[in-house]
Amino acid sequence: MKIETCTPPSPRTSIGSLNKGLGSFHHDLEPGELARLGWNLLHEDLSLPTAVLYEDSLLHNLDWMRRFIDAYGLRLAPHGKTTMAPQLFAMQLKAGAWGITLATAHQTLVAYTHGVRRVLMANQLVGKENMAIVSRLLQDPDFEFFSLVDSAALVDQLGAYFLEIGQRLCVLVELGVMGGRAGVRDDEQLNSVMDALSRWSQAIVLCGVELYEGVLDDETAIRALLKHASVITNKIAAERRFQRSPILLSGAGSAWYDIVAEEFSAARFDQAVEIVLRPGCYITHDVGAYREAQSKILERNPIAGQMRSDLLPALKIWAYVQSVPEAEKAIIGMGKRDAAFDSGLPVPALHFRPGDAAPKAVPEHWAVTKMMDQHAYMRVAAGDDLRVGDMIGFDICHPCLTFDKWRALPVLNAQYQVIDIVQTFF
Amino acid sequence: MKIETCTPPSPRTSIGSLNKGLGSFHHDLEPGELARLGWNLLHEDLSLPTAVLYEDSLLHNLDWMRRFIDAYGLRLAPHGKTTMAPQLFAMQLKAGAWGITLATAHQTLVAYTHGVRRVLMANQLVGKENMAIVSRLLQDPDFEFFSLVDSAALVDQLGAYFLEIGQRLCVLVELGVMGGRAGVRDDEQLNSVMDALSRWSQAIVLCGVELYEGVLDDETAIRALLKHASVITNKIAAERRFQRSPILLSGAGSAWYDIVAEEFSAARFDQAVEIVLRPGCYITHDVGAYREAQSKILERNPIAGQMRSDLLPALKIWAYVQSVPEAEKAIIGMGKRDAAFDSGLPVPALHFRPGDAAPKAVPEHWAVTKMMDQHAYMRVAAGDDLRVGDMIGFDICHPCLTFDKWRALPVLNAQYQVIDIVQTFF
Repeated sequence: MKIETCTPPSPRTSIGSLNKGLGSFHHDLEPGELARLGWNLLHEDLSLPTAVLYEDSLLHNLDWMRRFIDAYGLRLAPHGKTTMAPQLFAMQLKAGAWGITLATAHQTLVAYTHGVRRVLMANQLVGKENMAIVSRLLQDPDFEFFSLVDSAALVDQLGAYFLEIGQRLCVLVELGVMGGRAGVRDDEQLNSVMDALSRWSQAIVLCGVELYEGVLDDETAIRALLKHASVITNKIAAERRFQRSPILLSGAGSAWYDIVAEEFSAARFDQAVEIVLRPGCYITHDVGAYREAQSKILERNPIAGQMRSDLLPALKIWAYVQSVPEAEKAIIGMGKRDAAFDSGLPVPALHFRPGDAAPKAVPEHWAVTKMMDQHAYMRVAAGDDLRVGDMIGFDICHPCLTFDKWRALPVLNAQYQVIDIVQTFF
Repeated sequence: MKIETCTPPSPRTSIGSLNKGLGSFHHDLEPGELARLGWNLLHEDLSLPTAVLYEDSLLHNLDWMRRFIDAYGLRLAPHGKTTMAPQLFAMQLKAGAWGITLATAHQTLVAYTHGVRRVLMANQLVGKENMAIVSRLLQDPDFEFFSLVDSAALVDQLGAYFLEIGQRLCVLVELGVMGGRAGVRDDEQLNSVMDALSRWSQAIVLCGVELYEGVLDDETAIRALLKHASVITNKIAAERRFQRSPILLSGAGSAWYDIVAEEFSAARFDQAVEIVLRPGCYITHDVGAYREAQSKILERNPIAGQMRSDLLPALKIWAYVQSVPEAEKAIIGMGKRDAAFDSGLPVPALHFRPGDAAPKAVPEHWAVTKMMDQHAYMRVAAGDDLRVGDMIGFDICHPCLTFDKWRALPVLNAQYQVIDIVQTFF
């Protein structure tokens, strides 16, 4: 047990003064010092552009997903790659999450360092240094870790590494579909993986089955894949190949988690199965693809439909109008450096003029039409009441690719006071 | 002089152990400790994916641009927003740069904190806290700073702020074009800005003229804009409105800097003019839009054409093959979290199998066909010699949106040894 390799930094590290989007402070900010600064977004205490989290909406979303998962009696391992913010991981665990899902060895290290003790790495663990990272964390007997295998080649590489080091690595076999991402496509590939697992049974421990249905975009195909996964799970179980009870069975990104919940909770398993869902975007939600997916979930899923509330967008980018050079065009100090742009551009939501009492909703016709690295073009109408120095609050599309643009995100209360700063570790 | 507000961290800060793409170390890494670790990319000492800089190519590119600028007798203020890496700023200044161009007050703070003492903020300075950042830096009499104005509204806001605080802010008037980004479009807007400058002459100091020709994509239109800028410069000079001699005249992104050099150096000015060019991407170059633009520069510009060498791609992403689930598809552990994808996907360049002597060029038909947050699909041919655990080195398109995905980039020598780590501050 050489856990000293994994301890720095402390769970709540100090915040350096060179992060964008904050107010000014003259030495590293320690947790607890923030209140003294008394920052308020509407008093222009922050350097815009800034990405802010709304506490009320975060808590609402955490509660919403907890209730949904509880209604099905499932486990939640939210995908942490969305935010890579250990403070948000802690909120998710406090709200009942079984563990945190991550995508890489580096992300796992970040989570472990901040106290997470159960990680589902929904990805293949490949490469010497990546295996070494996981190996070091596994020196902690309280750390539970699972990664995926979908080829004999990978099982052989993992087996050789972990056998030599005298450790056991828990894996799930990943099921895939033709045209999709990773994952075994057919029985031949599956059998090849199972044979490899037999060769390395002292080092590689098969604990369950995993899939990512999000590579498909059709409900019928997704239901078929999920049913197939249940069949495969029973088949492998009948062969007594799983070395964990209950067997882990995991699926679900942020767009189809209701279908996964329905299919897996309705399936008949011959042995005890623990079903783990992995949505990640629910914590901040968005106004793009995930809002669209969520509205379909509310329509088609009886439990979601009965919850009488929806997920709320909890992440906004605030930026200044820096020029209004044409009657119908404002230039905004926010660009591809600040917000996702790959599945919809940011959507102007609130307009605030410093000195006013409160932000107001923007006119419906305001829209971002183009983004450059550090600028956005916003279409307005001639004569609109908009000036240089006004602040615009933008909802975003695709939280994952917005979070990774920010190292420190102020958390606001309903009065726009900064009550916390969430740090990311990408 | 309260410069203590701007000192932390030291020019070469320690490197935290939670950055992706590095090898393992067990406490913050101090400059100088790196050599002891002896990391080599080809020994799998780094956790992939990683973004690496090639020292030889960086130095080549710095020299190339220095020779180009010197041939025209111009000034270079490389756009630092591309990398936001103070160590690279220092290399650019050492290679003769006049100053560093930046886009925001936050970026200016980062550069100042790391020793940069002349900043052209090629953008409007808007908002109370952003003005406060610049005001604090201006307490250092050795700090030279310029930002842009293109509206009377902004001049009034800046004037009120800096007059009250008793400081003088140096500005350039930005010229723009209809359909473009910021910048005055016509004489009426220009006169309005000039009138505002007259009102605030005690606080706002007009030092020159600026434009960004990169909003146009046609050489003829760009030449016309540049000629117009020279005319406007002479006109304002004739009215004795500039309060700096020589007058600053600045243009040029990374795609048309040769045309700007030609037009501005050929223009006749009635007063002394200092011409400042601002390309940013040349330091790492790419294999996308900037390589394309550069090849046109080599064709059309006599000085570039005579230099008998070209800019070299100096930034690569290395990632593992994590699955080959179909005969013609490999899944790579590199995604939108790791490389730009907005103007071309990463291009596979080198293939290395751990244990081999050296990387080799990839077959021409390998290509990235899709990127997800943490994965890429790479098209291969059935039967290609490619395995799980192989390493692929990708050239990138659009350095700016690749740099901002990384906080620490190893610098490699020709033997793939890690000789330095470049940190970014986004």
